[in-house]
Amino acid sequence: MPEANDQPLHTDAETGVQHALQAPRIVIDELRPCVDGGRFPVKAVVGQPLQLSATIFIDGHDQLAARVLWSLPGDDTVSLPLQAMGNDHWQAEFTPPVTGVHRYAVEAWLDVWGSFRAELQKKHAAGQPLRLEIEEGRALVLAAAWENREDAALAGLAHKLPVLDDASALPLLLSEQTSALMHRHQARRFVNRSATVVVDVERLRAGYASWYELFPRSQSDSPQRHGRFDDVISRLPAIQAMGFDVLYFPPIHPIGDKNRKGRNNRLRAEPGDPGSPYAIGNADGGHDAVHRELGGIQGFRRLRAACEDHGLELALDFAVQCSPDHPWLAEHPGWFSWRPDGSIRYAENPPKKYEDIVNVDFYAEEAQPDLWLALRDIVEFWIGEGVRLFRVDNPHTKPLPFWQWLIADIRSRYPDAVFLAEAFTRPAMMSRLAKVGFGQSYTYFTWRNNKFELTQYLHELTTAPMVDYYRPHFFVNTPDINPHFLQTSGRAGFLIRAALAATTAGLWGVYSGFELCESAALPGREEYLDSEKYQIKPRDWRAPGNIIREISRLNHIRRNNACLQSQRGLCFYNAWNEAVIYYGKPAPDRSHRVLTLVSLDPHQVQETWFEAPLWEFGLADDGVLEVEDLMNGARFLWRGKHQHWRFDPHHGLPFAVLRVQPLEEQS
Amino acid sequence: MPEANDQPLHTDAETGVQHALQAPRIVIDELRPCVDGGRFPVKAVVGQPLQLSATIFIDGHDQLAARVLWSLPGDDTVSLPLQAMGNDHWQAEFTPPVTGVHRYAVEAWLDVWGSFRAELQKKHAAGQPLRLEIEEGRALVLAAAWENREDAALAGLAHKLPVLDDASALPLLLSEQTSALMHRHQARRFVNRSATVVVDVERLRAGYASWYELFPRSQSDSPQRHGRFDDVISRLPAIQAMGFDVLYFPPIHPIGDKNRKGRNNRLRAEPGDPGSPYAIGNADGGHDAVHRELGGIQGFRRLRAACEDHGLELALDFAVQCSPDHPWLAEHPGWFSWRPDGSIRYAENPPKKYEDIVNVDFYAEEAQPDLWLALRDIVEFWIGEGVRLFRVDNPHTKPLPFWQWLIADIRSRYPDAVFLAEAFTRPAMMSRLAKVGFGQSYTYFTWRNNKFELTQYLHELTTAPMVDYYRPHFFVNTPDINPHFLQTSGRAGFLIRAALAATTAGLWGVYSGFELCESAALPGREEYLDSEKYQIKPRDWRAPGNIIREISRLNHIRRNNACLQSQRGLCFYNAWNEAVIYYGKPAPDRSHRVLTLVSLDPHQVQETWFEAPLWEFGLADDGVLEVEDLMNGARFLWRGKHQHWRFDPHHGLPFAVLRVQPLEEQS
Repeated sequence: MPEANDQPLHTDAETGVQHALQAPRIVIDELRPCVDGGRFPVKAVVGQPLQLSATIFIDGHDQLAARVLWSLPGDDTVSLPLQAMGNDHWQAEFTPPVTGVHRYAVEAWLDVWGSFRAELQKKHAAGQPLRLEIEEGRALVLAAAWENREDAALAGLAHKLPVLDDASALPLLLSEQTSALMHRHQARRFVNRSATVVVDVERLRAGYASWYELFPRSQSDSPQRHGRFDDVISRLPAIQAMGFDVLYFPPIHPIGDKNRKGRNNRLRAEPGDPGSPYAIGNADGGHDAVHRELGGIQGFRRLRAACEDHGLELALDFAVQCSPDHPWLAEHPGWFSWRPDGSIRYAENPPKKYEDIVNVDFYAEEAQPDLWLALRDIVEFWIGEGVRLFRVDNPHTKPLPFWQWLIADIRSRYPDAVFLAEAFTRPAMMSRLAKVGFGQSYTYFTWRNNKFELTQYLHELTTAPMVDYYRPHFFVNTPDINPHFLQTSGRAGFLIRAALAATTAGLWGVYSGFELCESAALPGREEYLDSEKYQIKPRDWRAPGNIIREISRLNHIRRNNACLQSQRGLCFYNAWNEAVIYYGKPAPDRSHRVLTLVSLDPHQVQETWFEAPLWEFGLADDGVLEVEDLMNGARFLWRGKHQHWRFDPHHGLPFAVLRVQPLEEQS
Repeated sequence: MPEANDQPLHTDAETGVQHALQAPRIVIDELRPCVDGGRFPVKAVVGQPLQLSATIFIDGHDQLAARVLWSLPGDDTVSLPLQAMGNDHWQAEFTPPVTGVHRYAVEAWLDVWGSFRAELQKKHAAGQPLRLEIEEGRALVLAAAWENREDAALAGLAHKLPVLDDASALPLLLSEQTSALMHRHQARRFVNRSATVVVDVERLRAGYASWYELFPRSQSDSPQRHGRFDDVISRLPAIQAMGFDVLYFPPIHPIGDKNRKGRNNRLRAEPGDPGSPYAIGNADGGHDAVHRELGGIQGFRRLRAACEDHGLELALDFAVQCSPDHPWLAEHPGWFSWRPDGSIRYAENPPKKYEDIVNVDFYAEEAQPDLWLALRDIVEFWIGEGVRLFRVDNPHTKPLPFWQWLIADIRSRYPDAVFLAEAFTRPAMMSRLAKVGFGQSYTYFTWRNNKFELTQYLHELTTAPMVDYYRPHFFVNTPDINPHFLQTSGRAGFLIRAALAATTAGLWGVYSGFELCESAALPGREEYLDSEKYQIKPRDWRAPGNIIREISRLNHIRRNNACLQSQRGLCFYNAWNEAVIYYGKPAPDRSHRVLTLVSLDPHQVQETWFEAPLWEFGLADDGVLEVEDLMNGARFLWRGKHQHWRFDPHHGLPFAVLRVQPLEEQS
């Protein structure tokens, strides 16, 4: 928070008046987008339009003019006129063309000609005598011409006006041409400029991507055989065919032996149990090593190249924690916390203990800065291996200044690096992680199920202030979250959650097994039964009842509809059934909208009347919309505002994604 | 708006990590109250409690402690513990004891002992072995004792702990006494302090007052006789008896002759017409002169003394404008705008003209700073005459930097001076005037009539951000506003509007005639017929149908109920009738509440069921409340949540003001 206003509350110096005379007369306030009054950068991506706005006003009745000054990386500056929308609200739109650190500010000034012309128009309309006004108009033109002697059009006007009689001068003074000329050339009085807002513009995939998560070791034909990266390669065509564009792995590093966890998180592993990949490090190495049985670094490189061939970008897991066998414990004991008896402090959340993991101590004397630099070097190592997407495990248990520095440092050299915060904690911390640099964030999405919860949460994520800095990544499940809803919903529930995620957020993710509607859970828990976190789990990818076709179609729709490539623009509409949620997003040029209707009930048939958003296209309540059902290609018309839909969770889709636009002859 | 975060977005220096290591680990955010991130002072008054809060958090699972450091004028600092309310929200309360410029900041630190003790408790409850934990606890106590060798209690504990066995040490480590001791003395790790917020604490009357407005010249027995201040003196007992504590006059200065307005705003005055008092200045003088027929400065001084004797404070009108006869036009022609023909520019809002008024030009060359200083000197002149309340006419048509400077300058020498902004314009400007220094503000109250409008507007005024800087002054009418509602409502409408204003805002005002239910209007306008602005208008103060008794009672209730002395704390409750609005405010100690039910229908009987707010006192739905009808002193009980009221606008009050508290034997 900045210090209080530089204008002292009580001033006793006579010179205070000199300060006041220099102070801006025009107020420029409430710049949007802007995060915490400018303390953190706004997030944007290349090619997606940003709405810019400000509140701008002056005392009295004079007219103002205003513009946005947008600085691109490399110091090119674009000037965008702001439009007055009424009630002192001004607006513009800009689509960042390149990645990098952009900056914008708003400039406003008293529009002398605009004010003069408006007064002249009103008095003319009221039939009042205009002799003095016309004289004043001539003087304004002459002054502008004198200041801009090189402008031929203005010089011509300035020569003509003095010799015309009032009746002939009046239309000239009121004309649009004169107005445009004067706006360009008149002296700008009482110019004020806002502070500068920083906009961090990232590549499109920072904001729009469809992630698929798998455990490479499970890409095997038998629970007894440890899958290898080469097995993953053979899975790539199927993942690509589903329409995903990011492939994400839990940690791929050597796994500790000491206190290794057994199946279903048992305290002790049986012989042959592979252990949790989050217990990072053993004699083979730590965070910069690759698990031997996955194929080592050579296997990783083959996989990365194959991903590229399949249009898939790799995302790795960055989990700042060590197994008790991690080389750092011996090499850097000063990076850890030790107890009075000389033992190391294990990760705990009393009374729970995580004996297979020890945490580093970021503020231990020897850790400053060596541990910080070592962690940075690990990220940079993987960047060297071609990775640019990092899903960060539990960032909320590591210091915020660490993340703020790490991400800024990495992105100063690798601006295309993107960090996803896997934080499920209280809202203030989740927001802050986004503000200090995480480009993507996990959310409460898996725990929002009914219409009220979803509407409220989606509204929060898609409007200011959050929309300006928080990019929600909607995972429908994760290895840690087998949502209660899906445990009893059956196949329809998986379709419901996939449709919700794929049509609201620009980023969504599926953890493998979801497409097979897997839901077996540890009783009463959100944990998967026989979780892959602790064992190898081959699957039959053609199992009956899978929803591969529907997921593929949703990703296809996302790819062809720019409005689904961001959380922005979400708008809720009325559906008169509490079990049906209904929302839409406008195409960037507003020519059409993508509407989504989802029945939140996976068990029973639901029907609803709902409002066709005719008003969004300026149509009356009896207007007609062309509708295309994007899931099956059907085309039909909606005549009038009240429309009806029926969802059968057992013999059809529990949702609809529709492209609507005015019937051509109307618009 | 401040510049972007001092942490660069992309840093390329290795030294960035050193910066990060020094950066605060604990986040302190969302301080409340706070205006625009600290750019403007928060407003408060002496003796009224302020709720303080902040969002405070750290990475991981450690516990925090936090306090508010509140600096009083003169540098005394009070330390107030903040309480954790859950979800990283922390809270405290403080009642400023004196006027002046206060400052507060929030400090937070890692509570090492609290974190240790919480872990110990959990493990103890889970029956886990505690040997290492007890050892760690001993070490913490010893370290604190070493750092605080003068503390006998801590020294005693440090001596005792090492010789006790674990079973005896444990209860000592878990005890409240040890906790209190350690909280006082332990080293505070990772201390962070927020930026400082300025709080402008004013006298109670800045936030709580009941204003009565009259035209002194109308305090006469005949339209032909110009009333004098001595006539006003004879009215003071009646005004005092109505419970008002501020007496406010439109301008009392000499009135111009040139272009003087006639009755009902006619373009030309007839002989004997007194003119608008807003056309300030003639040969007798300008803003620092007193109209001769009112009794001159001597008459004013007699009146001021008499007001003091009647518990009434005087408020004057500060209208920065001149009649064409004002001495400044000849003395300082450079302070005005001139037209090409050498004539002066009259006030206009095309096509409307105000020929009896000319405006000064604040940014004319010769006006900088002479005009600004001259206006300041006028305010200071009236301060010299004992005036501290200034109602400022149309401040939104004068530069904001002028007000910011003027008010700060005046209040640096006269901290008890209060400025009321008479701005009826767009919301952004009205808010800004409050932010730059106006202690009170006119509102849209007179144009909010139905339940939805009133609820929405009152909610906006009584919650953040507005409640922290904007003090609404609810005038029920003004010489410029004869509200449409009152033109047709009859007497009941006047009672409705009086009750609404008097029970929601700390500041309310009545322009004389209201108590007589005067409502004759210029057809189709919100102007009074035969407005006092242009003529002398004696009244019969005992006219039948007046509401003097009810107004007196409302002011009496306000005086005896602290919760009605501020807009803060307003809370709406359910009444199941769209014509009935129902709200309440808690007593500062929460022991009781003042509830108000108002029928907004002045014509017909309305009845409603409504909810007795039993939950506010922790009572179940069948609880019992003691109720006192504050308008008539009746006492009764409410048993249960569902209660009923009937409003007869013709044979009773269209509203009720009730004091409720739990029946004694229950609570």
